[in-house]
Amino acid sequence: MNTSPAPADTGNPAAEAAAIEAIKQTKARYFRFMDTKQWDDFAQVFAEDAVMDMSGELERNGVDGSAGIVHGRSNIKNFVKDAVDAAVTTHHGHMPEINITSPTTAEGIWAMYDLVDFGPDAAFRGLRGYGHYHETYTKGADGTWRIQTTKLTRLRIEAL
Amino acid sequence: MNTSPAPADTGNPAAEAAAIEAIKQTKARYFRFMDTKQWDDFAQVFAEDAVMDMSGELERNGVDGSAGIVHGRSNIKNFVKDAVDAAVTTHHGHMPEINITSPTTAEGIWAMYDLVDFGPDAAFRGLRGYGHYHETYTKGADGTWRIQTTKLTRLRIEAL
Amino acid sequence: MNTSPAPADTGNPAAEAAAIEAIKQTKARYFRFMDTKQWDDFAQVFAEDAVMDMSGELERNGVDGSAGIVHGRSNIKNFVKDAVDAAVTTHHGHMPEINITSPTTAEGIWAMYDLVDFGPDAAFRGLRGYGHYHETYTKGADGTWRIQTTKLTRLRIEAL
Repeated sequence: MNTSPAPADTGNPAAEAAAIEAIKQTKARYFRFMDTKQWDDFAQVFAEDAVMDMSGELERNGVDGSAGIVHGRSNIKNFVKDAVDAAVTTHHGHMPEINITSPTTAEGIWAMYDLVDFGPDAAFRGLRGYGHYHETYTKGADGTWRIQTTKLTRLRIEAL
Repeated sequence: MNTSPAPADTGNPAAEAAAIEAIKQTKARYFRFMDTKQWDDFAQVFAEDAVMDMSGELERNGVDGSAGIVHGRSNIKNFVKDAVDAAVTTHHGHMPEINITSPTTAEGIWAMYDLVDFGPDAAFRGLRGYGHYHETYTKGADGTWRIQTTKLTRLRIEAL
Repeated sequence: MNTSPAPADTGNPAAEAAAIEAIKQTKARYFRFMDTKQWDDFAQVFAEDAVMDMSGELERNGVDGSAGIVHGRSNIKNFVKDAVDAAVTTHHGHMPEINITSPTTAEGIWAMYDLVDFGPDAAFRGLRGYGHYHETYTKGADGTWRIQTTKLTRLRIEAL
């Protein structure tokens, strides 16, 4: 995507604009359902065989990252719920670069900000973080775009 | 909106995309005119009979929230001006989920961040806040989309 | 733009929506390539004869602002690289108001947030800033939208 800024020409500008908007709304639900702890709805923004790569979140703490690569909608839901259900979280996405690669596939990059606060009594209080999501999306047989793969890279972490 | 992610099919994808973009720009003016204190322009982003529900902003301080429900464009302008004209404010919207429900009506949810600073000498210095706007929009006879109803819910407030 | 919220009607809603999305992605690359220090790619988001006006960044420190007005893609790249290559930076754009003024020209306003951190040992540690970009865009012969002019105004600066 870095070297090819123009979106793929699928021959139908209106359909492509609608697909990009639908993917933005999928990612919006990802953030909103996480921050409002609606975990069953959160699961539905992922394809059933989605892959989430949060290995960098472990590696920056000197831990092997392989446990941060999670396969499947159900495991992703449990992984994220276990990580942040006890915290007040606010996640914001910014500046999407979404590229429709076929009528049912797309790729995208988002800038992101997150604030995770486990409260004053927690052993680990929390963080403010900045980075990018690198993602792919697929459109299911039901016409809904879902996250197929997502990987988080970081620019900066501040301890709370 | 939580259970029906797909936008209503009004049969015209290009018109729907244009309406969604126009609503995003309406909300952008809401933020910009508030933060640059252009109050007459701010008023115009609301329908004349709009309703703003900021009751939660009062209730979290233990005050009855009914004074935070404001009816009409002119009252909304005065309410917001009275609240923040003396402060440096920055408001950002994120991750809109806008659903066109008819050619002249729509609903939407936005994540938000606001920073309100009354300065070091103020009795109440200010806050950083996080939450969601829950809104409806109407398209006027002049072709302009305006905010019809808006309600703010909060995830987190930090005192400045 | 303040008084004329409706976008110019160029007679082709789908083409206009595609142009607005392409400009958003151009600005997304501006932010991402700056924050990931990919300076050659950063240069390419600007028209060859682009003008960047950061005079306000100098003037608020009591310095004459003329050195902050930079002409040409190559000079802009060097100016920004010199300013922030040594810092961890995160820049986010918000709430674009993009108006297509002809098939090859557009104007836009973005709310913005930036965090610039030169580290604990630097004479100037850095800042968190809030403001607006006021920009114009042109579509080149290669079909790519680029930043033609950009000027940053500030609402607020916090020292790190």
